[in-house]
Amino acid sequence: MILTVTLNTALDLTSTVPALVPHTSHRIGEMTERPGGKGLNVARVLSALGHDTVVTGFAGGATGAVLRDLLATLPHRPTDALVTISGNTRRTLALVDLSTGDTTQLNEPGPQIGAHEWAAFLRTYGELLPGAEAVALCGSLPPGIHVGAYAELVRLARGAGVPVLLDTGGEPLRRGIAARPDLIKPNADELAQLTGAREPLRATRDARRRGAAGVVASLGADGLLAVTPEGIWQAAPPSAVRGNPTGAGDSAVAGLLSGLAEGLSWPDRLARAVALSTATVLAPAAGEFDRATYEDLLPRVTVVEQQGTGTGL
Amino acid sequence: MILTVTLNTALDLTSTVPALVPHTSHRIGEMTERPGGKGLNVARVLSALGHDTVVTGFAGGATGAVLRDLLATLPHRPTDALVTISGNTRRTLALVDLSTGDTTQLNEPGPQIGAHEWAAFLRTYGELLPGAEAVALCGSLPPGIHVGAYAELVRLARGAGVPVLLDTGGEPLRRGIAARPDLIKPNADELAQLTGAREPLRATRDARRRGAAGVVASLGADGLLAVTPEGIWQAAPPSAVRGNPTGAGDSAVAGLLSGLAEGLSWPDRLARAVALSTATVLAPAAGEFDRATYEDLLPRVTVVEQQGTGTGL
Repeated sequence: MILTVTLNTALDLTSTVPALVPHTSHRIGEMTERPGGKGLNVARVLSALGHDTVVTGFAGGATGAVLRDLLATLPHRPTDALVTISGNTRRTLALVDLSTGDTTQLNEPGPQIGAHEWAAFLRTYGELLPGAEAVALCGSLPPGIHVGAYAELVRLARGAGVPVLLDTGGEPLRRGIAARPDLIKPNADELAQLTGAREPLRATRDARRRGAAGVVASLGADGLLAVTPEGIWQAAPPSAVRGNPTGAGDSAVAGLLSGLAEGLSWPDRLARAVALSTATVLAPAAGEFDRATYEDLLPRVTVVEQQGTGTGL
Repeated sequence: MILTVTLNTALDLTSTVPALVPHTSHRIGEMTERPGGKGLNVARVLSALGHDTVVTGFAGGATGAVLRDLLATLPHRPTDALVTISGNTRRTLALVDLSTGDTTQLNEPGPQIGAHEWAAFLRTYGELLPGAEAVALCGSLPPGIHVGAYAELVRLARGAGVPVLLDTGGEPLRRGIAARPDLIKPNADELAQLTGAREPLRATRDARRRGAAGVVASLGADGLLAVTPEGIWQAAPPSAVRGNPTGAGDSAVAGLLSGLAEGLSWPDRLARAVALSTATVLAPAAGEFDRATYEDLLPRVTVVEQQGTGTGL
């Protein structure tokens, strides 16, 4: 079983607007709803790949109930081990402008998490860890959760001997890295914010020095740069693609995590991550991926080992 | 009992944004939710005034369930006689820009109403009419409802001997007027669209000629202009006010309808409608009204009869 943690789950709403003009009234399209938050997105892709997947984190209120109902009706559904909270799960609204295709994003703050709710989550997490082949800790922290929460969860995973991937940003990432996760997957901005360096190889090496055993940096259209104890690789899609990048990073995490659980080589893990990520950008619905596109792309991803540079440590 | 009909109920969401910039990402404030749609707003004010009030119309899906839960927890709550539908009640989002105070409004389309759902509504409406002192038909028609629906409901009310107020716009208003409602309450735009005339007295008289026994036109800061079989009056607040006009028209409808049910004179009905409407503009929360403000304003509303002009018919 693969476990994903989403402390700040969200009900993701998407709608369309002919053209968004601030301070006027608009008729928008019917809102579609999907269960969201990075760890839930990762779990959906893992389930679609055939992995036994469990999601935990928090859900509550009327919005949390809708999120769990939607989760239960997915064709490939992860097991729901979310902890119920008294607050209301947040909503996000992506408003796609029909005239330009650009998206305006509106994100509610997460609900306040109480001390007893965090304690309940830690019990659930502790019960699930022994059965996990790998765990992914994903996304932002809701209000009320201490900034060192991911460091605490990384240490618990390492204590249980479970490989742990951390995908977050800002101070929670900085603190989490110090607890020595097996893998982090920052994008260029998160990496620059963490290390102060904008040059990807330099920033990635710096992130390893801070405690991450492996770093896979997502470089947008340039694919992934992996700096690991086993070597350094750059993986890229066969050609640049245009589409909706929503969820592409989460699909990459699912590729890396499933590859780790299956004991794939680094080049194979990276090829899978790039193919899944690219198939997500190309899918018509945000955050989904098309299996046929994924299978077509997989053998055509280029993975190049950077010889001679070593691990840089 | 006073009955209000809201065929296109809505869950009204309100949030704040530091400054709305299309095609960028925003952290917005927590969304507050209230049961909405014009007839529900009217019913809330009637209930707060102490009137036994029943709401009917449609509600369905997860959003309809939230709307009904919120309705049930109001301090002064109307009786819920909404008809359950298979579609999902629409949502509206009002996004208040913290930098300017201006509102960007996003309105979902209403759910499709099936023929059997319309038939179920007509049964409920027919059962409620005999117990009603007055009925208000409010707001837009959801998809699937024929454009002559309000004309049908006006005729049924008149057949049951129940005074009927119609508050809608466009073609549903045009058709509805021909069925001779006791009162319509258009704003200046709806009146101009209906009659082609922009001059309020002329347009209001024209609206009467089309079939409305009485017309109360809302003229924004200028108050109300009433053209009725008993005379013509203009009612205005003691001074111009600044605030949020959301729901002010619905409060005016509640004032007119409660005055009608209580057998008040036209000047007293109009004074109540203007005081309620102004107290709604002045309230901090959109669509609410402050009772103390209302009671302070009531004796200070000026109501002037336009002598010599007669009813203009």
